[in-house]
Formats: sequence, C-alpha cells, structure tokens
Amino acid sequence: MTDTTQNTRILLASRPHGEPTSDNFRIETAPMPQPADGEVLLRTVYMSLDPYMRGRMNDAKSYAAPVELGSVMEGGTVAEVVESRDPSLQAGDIVLSHLGWQSHGVQQAKHVRKLDADRAPISTAVGVLGMPGFTAYAGLLEIGKPQPGETVVVAAAAGPVGSAVGQIARIKGARAVGIAGGPEKVAWLKELGFDVALDHRSPTFKEDLKAAVPDGIDVYFENVGGHVWDAVLPLLNTYARVPVCGLVAHYNETALPDGPDRSARLMSSILTKSITVRGFIQTEFVKSHYKQFQADAAEWIADGSLRYREDIVEGLENAPDAFFGMLTGKNFGKLLVQVGADPTR
Amino acid sequence: MTDTTQNTRILLASRPHGEPTSDNFRIETAPMPQPADGEVLLRTVYMSLDPYMRGRMNDAKSYAAPVELGSVMEGGTVAEVVESRDPSLQAGDIVLSHLGWQSHGVQQAKHVRKLDADRAPISTAVGVLGMPGFTAYAGLLEIGKPQPGETVVVAAAAGPVGSAVGQIARIKGARAVGIAGGPEKVAWLKELGFDVALDHRSPTFKEDLKAAVPDGIDVYFENVGGHVWDAVLPLLNTYARVPVCGLVAHYNETALPDGPDRSARLMSSILTKSITVRGFIQTEFVKSHYKQFQADAAEWIADGSLRYREDIVEGLENAPDAFFGMLTGKNFGKLLVQVGADPTR
Repeated sequence: MTDTTQNTRILLASRPHGEPTSDNFRIETAPMPQPADGEVLLRTVYMSLDPYMRGRMNDAKSYAAPVELGSVMEGGTVAEVVESRDPSLQAGDIVLSHLGWQSHGVQQAKHVRKLDADRAPISTAVGVLGMPGFTAYAGLLEIGKPQPGETVVVAAAAGPVGSAVGQIARIKGARAVGIAGGPEKVAWLKELGFDVALDHRSPTFKEDLKAAVPDGIDVYFENVGGHVWDAVLPLLNTYARVPVCGLVAHYNETALPDGPDRSARLMSSILTKSITVRGFIQTEFVKSHYKQFQADAAEWIADGSLRYREDIVEGLENAPDAFFGMLTGKNFGKLLVQVGADPTR
Repeated sequence: MTDTTQNTRILLASRPHGEPTSDNFRIETAPMPQPADGEVLLRTVYMSLDPYMRGRMNDAKSYAAPVELGSVMEGGTVAEVVESRDPSLQAGDIVLSHLGWQSHGVQQAKHVRKLDADRAPISTAVGVLGMPGFTAYAGLLEIGKPQPGETVVVAAAAGPVGSAVGQIARIKGARAVGIAGGPEKVAWLKELGFDVALDHRSPTFKEDLKAAVPDGIDVYFENVGGHVWDAVLPLLNTYARVPVCGLVAHYNETALPDGPDRSARLMSSILTKSITVRGFIQTEFVKSHYKQFQADAAEWIADGSLRYREDIVEGLENAPDAFFGMLTGKNFGKLLVQVGADPTR
C-alpha cells in the first residue's frame, strides 16, 4: 500500500469559490523527507477528515491561518514511526501526529504523542479520544453546562462530535435530542440511547422538533447552522446556552443569503431570553481540561456509555471525494482515510 | 402640584405599531386609592422612564408580561408615604416603589424600600443607585468581566446605564470608549474620564471607532444595536464578551429589515473569534450581587469615581413626550419625570 521511497501528498492547488472541487487539490509524489536530530520520520496510517478543514482552504481569517497555496493540506494523523532520531521514540511506535494529507512526513518527536494500542484502537486518537471527542466534551460541559433533567439538542448528531455530545449529555443526566440526516443515522442515534432522534430532512422537521422538546431547549450544541438553527432558536428557554463549534451548512456560501436581514432579530432573541451564545474551538480548553477528558472518556468507553462509529475510506487519493461528501453529510461516523496499513489490526 | 383627592394616571390606550405616539396613551383621573392593612398610600415624587418600557407596550412575549390595555403604564418610582397601614412605615417616609405612571398608588409595605435622603439624593434610587446602575454593574462585571488594560466599548454612553458602564470599567482598570449622539454628550463623557468618546452620528464614525481601539475590543456592552453594533462586530477580539441589555435602535421596527440576511455571518463571527454574546436583565443578578453593588456604588459616588447626570421633566402629563424623546436619544442623562414636590430638596 505504501511506496517506501516516495512521499505521496495532496496539496491545496487553488482556493474554492463555494463548494470545493477536485480542481482545488493536486496529488503529487515527492522525495521521502529525512529526519534531523530530535525528529522522526512517520508513515501515515489514518488521516482525519474534519469540517474545519474547509475553513483552512479560504484566504479569509478564521480561527487559524489558512493553508498556503501549494502546501500540503493540514490535518491530524495517526502514524507509525519509520525512523527515529530522538531517544523518546523508536521505529514501530504509533503516534498521534499532524502530518496532513500525505503518506509520510517528518515531525519533531516532542510534537507527537505516543499511543498505546492496547488501551484503545489507535484510530480513536483522532476520533472519540481525540479532537472531536474533546470538542464535544469541552463545549458541552464548559459552555453548555447541562443540568440533570435539562434538554440538550445537538445537530449532526451522527457525526463524531454530535454523537459524543448526546451521549455525554445523557451521562450527565440530561435529556438528549439528536438531529441527523436520514433514517439510518436516526436509527443509530436511538441505538446510542438518545431520548429522541430526528431527521432534519423530514418535511415535518420543525414540528417534530417542537414536539420532541415539551420543556423547551436548555442547551443547543451548534455545529451546523442553517434550517436546523432556525428551528431551534424559537424553542430555546430563558438562560439557554449555545456553544457554537461549527456552521457546516454555511461553509460553502459565497455571498450573504437574500433578506430579510434577521441578524437584529437574532440579537433580540438573545436579549429577551437571556441566552448565551458562545463560539469556541477546543484548543482553548486543552490545558485546563484535556487530562480529565482522557480519563473520563476512557472510563465511559469502557463501561459502554460512550460509543462511536468510524467511516473509513481506503487510500489517500480518495481523500478529496470523502471530504466533499462529509461537507454534505454523506459520511456516517468519524470520517478517516486509511493511508497505510494498520499494524495493530 | 398634586391634587390630594384624585389620582392622575396614564394608561396604555392602544398598542403602538412602530414608533409610539400620544394616541397610545390616555391620561385620566381616578378616585384616590385606599390602603388596606399592611399597605401604604403613596404620592409619586419621581417616576423613572426607561427604554424597556417600550417592550412592555407590545403584546409580544418579552422578558416580562406586557402592560394590559387600559392599565397604568409600569415603572419604578420614588414616592412619599401619605398614609401607612403598616408599622414599618409612616407618613413622610420616602420609598422606592413601583407605582408606574401615576400620581398616587397603593402598595404593600413589604414591597417598597425605605430610602435615606441623607445618604444620597432620593432620585438616585431609580438611577445610578437603582436599576440602571445595577444593570451596568452586573452586566459589565458578571458577563463582560473586563480585565485591567482591556478595552471596553459602550454605546448610549451618556445614558444612565452606559455612563456607569464606562466609569466602572475604568475603576476596574480597563480602557473605556464611549459612544453617544452629539457633541454635548461626547464632551460630557470626556469630563467623566472616558478614554475616548465618539459621536455615532459622525460620517466617519466607523473609522473613528477603529482608530479608537488599536488593540481591538474586549468587551462591548450592547444596549443599542443598529449601525453601532455593525461597526463594533468586526473589531471584536478573540474571546470578546458582549453583554446584551438592550437594542433600542430596533424597538420600533415593525418588520424585518431588508436583506441580505446577515444572521449566519453573525454566528460565523461568534464562532471564528470565540465570542460570548449573552443577553441579560438585571433581575437575574439581584439576589447574588445587589448588596455588593449598593456598597460599591455608594463608595464610588462618594470618592467621585462614579458620577451621574439627571434629566428631569416636570409634570406627569409630559411623560409620553419625554418617553418618545428617550427612544430617539433626546434625553441627556437619567430621564425622570417629577410628578410631585420633592420634600428633600
């Protein structure tokens, strides 16, 4: 599966205008990079695909610097050490790394984290035990602050963040209402123990949501926007909390939508219902909460209260198509690209 | 000034569609009410006019129930006890009460608070030492959380809430930028010690604001909305806090403004800059913070670091016009109606 003399990589070739297309990417091979002292040469096993990557393709200022044109697309990876020039790691070690969309790469040993395959499947390091899981944990608990008996609503609930949000809400004694696209995902949410699971594609979605929250909504974990948010807003209770971690329905918009302008009405809802709307990215909470998250999540996975699902696409060359699909909700579970053989399976 | 046999009162005659007019009010005289056991008969000295009253004129659900058609307009008052049927109060006592727009009224003694005219001018009980002052205090400190050296921006800064926000921000070591309408108000803000004071009516307002906040905006205390908010939003820093206590620029809107629809872009700004937008009304914080506010504000007024200004209109019959003027920024300082003689002056 992997050429050991060449590095295959996917570059950002041009910036998308609206929906990204294959033209925005270029696949190429390059000489294998060489590690210097303190560095390791890594071979990518799993590469994570996440909605935030759409933002990095733009030139506009977002939470992080954009990917430069002609540079490798960014992203979290699980990789095997091929060659180590640092005493802390040796060939064969599996590490959480940030190689981006490529088959190999060099990183400083101190910037990667060694994984224990006996503790959890290594792919979970970019999933339920990694950035998406932590996003759910930190956003829900630190901003959403669900109380026992309160109602938590989450969209993209079959995704890696949303599925964790709903399950953690239930662990904390709240009622979890999950919103997803299509009957299969809805069925899976019920399997996970969501109190209610709704299909946002249903023509009666707005009424379905209203019926699902007889006591209103106390926490809405926002990662979608669009018509789901429009349905949620009037149902929010006084003192509702809205952690905002994504707006995938809007990432491909090229211009402001037609009017009327509802922005003042949004502020007015926030005012009259004493609502908290709080944007965040998980990095804000790493220092203060990551350790506790790792301990809690490991315990919840072990006792079966936190489950996850992976959607693994084979082959680096298929990353762009998988990425496009994710932006329209075609993945089902945490989307990963298997770039090379998994030595632990 | 006061007829001692009749109660003069202003009723809500009809609900406004857009800007309120005199037709929405009706002035009438009614028999003097009689206190029962545990009650007091009060004579209004000062009546407070506040922007929130516009919301109470609507039928729509806001933070509080609307005023019923044919009922006396609501509002905070400073009043003198005419007759007491409760041992806790006696004739001549001055109390903070909630009589609304009328010359007299009956309240339960336990629902009024006796004022000490030697401690502060009695009018301040509905101003800097009352609801508006506490709104500034609680919203700024509990939601805005200004840190020393941070930049706090406040609109309607010459009003009773805004002027307190800016001064308390400075007391806490932050930089205060005040926005008001017209050169007189701007001059007064400078007198109060605001680091910068800007006129939002200036054609260069947007640029002026940008120049006034070289390090961006950490806290924006929102009580206006409209073009001020539009100018503020792009200047907010990562982790900025926006306590929302009013949107006076929008209170008279009868329909959503024309497009484009900027609501998703607002959410996107909140996301990418990890902004907190939090609606509130001061009642939320009364139990936890009112005592401390009273102590702090009294100290700050005594040492000159918290100053205030009153705009007193004579005569209950002039309340509607004064109220209309307030909604368009014509008042200068805390707007009060003097309904009867002030026995302490």
